[in-house]
Amino acid sequence: MANNGNANGNVWQFKGNTATSDAAAVALRKLVFKMFRNYNLNSGKPILAPSPGDPSASPSFLTCPVAEEAVAAAARSGMANSYAPSPGILKARRAVADYLNGELPAKLKEEDVYITGGCNQAIEIVIDSLAGNSVANILLPRPGYPHYDARALYSCLEVRKYDLLPQKDWEIDLDGLEAAADENTVAMVLINPNNPCGNVYSYDHLNKVAEIARKLGIVVISDEVYKHVVYGDRPFIPMGIFASIAPVITLGSISKGWVVPGWRIGWIAMNDPNSILKSTGVIQAIEDCLDLTPQPSLILQEALPDILEKTPKEFFDKKIKAMRHSVEFSCERLKDIPCLFCPKKPESCSYLWVKLDTSMLVNIKNDFEFCMKLVSKEATQFNGSIANLQ
Amino acid sequence: MANNGNANGNVWQFKGNTATSDAAAVALRKLVFKMFRNYNLNSGKPILAPSPGDPSASPSFLTCPVAEEAVAAAARSGMANSYAPSPGILKARRAVADYLNGELPAKLKEEDVYITGGCNQAIEIVIDSLAGNSVANILLPRPGYPHYDARALYSCLEVRKYDLLPQKDWEIDLDGLEAAADENTVAMVLINPNNPCGNVYSYDHLNKVAEIARKLGIVVISDEVYKHVVYGDRPFIPMGIFASIAPVITLGSISKGWVVPGWRIGWIAMNDPNSILKSTGVIQAIEDCLDLTPQPSLILQEALPDILEKTPKEFFDKKIKAMRHSVEFSCERLKDIPCLFCPKKPESCSYLWVKLDTSMLVNIKNDFEFCMKLVSKEATQFNGSIANLQ
Repeated sequence: MANNGNANGNVWQFKGNTATSDAAAVALRKLVFKMFRNYNLNSGKPILAPSPGDPSASPSFLTCPVAEEAVAAAARSGMANSYAPSPGILKARRAVADYLNGELPAKLKEEDVYITGGCNQAIEIVIDSLAGNSVANILLPRPGYPHYDARALYSCLEVRKYDLLPQKDWEIDLDGLEAAADENTVAMVLINPNNPCGNVYSYDHLNKVAEIARKLGIVVISDEVYKHVVYGDRPFIPMGIFASIAPVITLGSISKGWVVPGWRIGWIAMNDPNSILKSTGVIQAIEDCLDLTPQPSLILQEALPDILEKTPKEFFDKKIKAMRHSVEFSCERLKDIPCLFCPKKPESCSYLWVKLDTSMLVNIKNDFEFCMKLVSKEATQFNGSIANLQ
Repeated sequence: MANNGNANGNVWQFKGNTATSDAAAVALRKLVFKMFRNYNLNSGKPILAPSPGDPSASPSFLTCPVAEEAVAAAARSGMANSYAPSPGILKARRAVADYLNGELPAKLKEEDVYITGGCNQAIEIVIDSLAGNSVANILLPRPGYPHYDARALYSCLEVRKYDLLPQKDWEIDLDGLEAAADENTVAMVLINPNNPCGNVYSYDHLNKVAEIARKLGIVVISDEVYKHVVYGDRPFIPMGIFASIAPVITLGSISKGWVVPGWRIGWIAMNDPNSILKSTGVIQAIEDCLDLTPQPSLILQEALPDILEKTPKEFFDKKIKAMRHSVEFSCERLKDIPCLFCPKKPESCSYLWVKLDTSMLVNIKNDFEFCMKLVSKEATQFNGSIANLQ
């Protein structure tokens, strides 16, 4: 029966889903763009694009011509026009397996890899595939990448945090990690190289994480999207090396390594030598999820093998040199700012994670308020002190 | 507290989300690929790719060189490397508004358009944005496009069906539409040009649909992805023309018109001259959802204005001629098959929707069983009758 109250056209029965708002409120892009919402575009000052973690806007960080030509060729080939199979095309899955296999004792096969629309879609699919139990929880690092919080909230997975320790080079508080878990914990997220702290985890530390995951009975989601952005001395170690201890789902993309986050091509790799992800139905859930969600452009999938296989080492070397220079410069300039200090000079990623000493500031309670007021001040060319902005 | 039972490594606490399986089970690609799962690739017969509704595998349906060159240029421009804003880049949104505006009395502005990873992501976002109320339901056409069923199921929106009438050129059963609704109905989906029936709705029929939507207090989701694939005499009328009666969310993409479903670029257009979608929070929910979900590749977004504006009319004319020829040929051949008949020769889309007379078949209960057995028979070069396949 239709609702007759609507016949006058005044009553509309639908309304927007507020669950999307709750989840989006903690997404990084929402926070960043919120800061710039009241920015006066006519202030006469140059505006640095607020894209989080994206140096591609700078002319110092062009992508590799090999990658551009691979995409152009794929677009013209006529081979990238059809619907792609949900898990991605085999040649792209094989190329990613080959790309990751060098360092792994248990080699990935092409069917262990799924192609996604960048790492963000990989996060969405993996979190969705592990959800479904209303009391389940997931362990996320603090500080961390807020997209995990947003997607966990949206999939009704309870978020529990474990700490990264600034005094120990941002290593994981392993006792705290274990204490945060209970019988409803299904997974932990590890970000290595670490976004936003900029450290790289050692072999021994990752080995301990794997042992704890096994003890807790949880899967490790290892976000390795920054694996090509390491400019310190410590080498990157893939978590997949420890997959015989506890299963590891590795997430990655070309976004950071090739400085093309706008292209949107990434992957999920199932490091599962003991078939635990298969027997627990996680692989089936991921494959079902891929049937329900948009595939990445086949143009990018077609181009991916050439991008991964033909990019010269010199491209990465040059980029790493520029990143190292930027970090040195920023850390040097940071010394002149009394209320900010960096607990550890980053050796990876594209962030400089600093501590804000609010005791030195007037009427600024936390980091978000500081950033909001900083934007307002810069936007309006305000001449008073920060305290006057109240 | 960790579950100590896991210390022996035998107990893993996670399992795959079965809700994804339930929803994926009704997705079109799952159904189609299921049929081919047991196909013997070594049967020696050529295999027609089972891509649903995708003529791009045929050399008769190449895309337009203008489109290929637009993508190649975008990849090489260095302008498509950064993260895109969640709703899409302004020049792409403006190009879509211009592309749709010709026929609309209330013109779309660029902010009324959101860019998505093809029409499937548009469906996902719109359904998610209208969900959130556990008793809400949505009206879907029967026959229809199963991705709506899958996404509604996944978003916990109850699916109710309204019929399309083969004896009336696949018009909507308007009385049945109204009867299927109640006070918890939030939206109806209209597919025009109609996938899979191949008809095009008249101005008067769409006007009646708008009046019913207003009476019911629901939003019309108008899937117009096939607007460029009309080869009959009746012209396509966009539903947005009637948006002053009831709000209309128009979904579209270049997938079908340009024969590039693998490229994954589409849109959501809010035909909302009375600001109903705004005041009910639907626009906010869509924008929040876009913050949570992967953007389409910026390469495709950059290329979209040139694709929409510079493709010559001759490209569409040639494609339409080839489609018309294919339909004539198929309908002619269909006359030789006794158990299949087509209630209406299609005038749009890329399907031929036929009725199966199971009374003429032995041991075949329904269409799905018929298709499964047909694949098995062809795959094994079986020499008996269909009845012998039991």
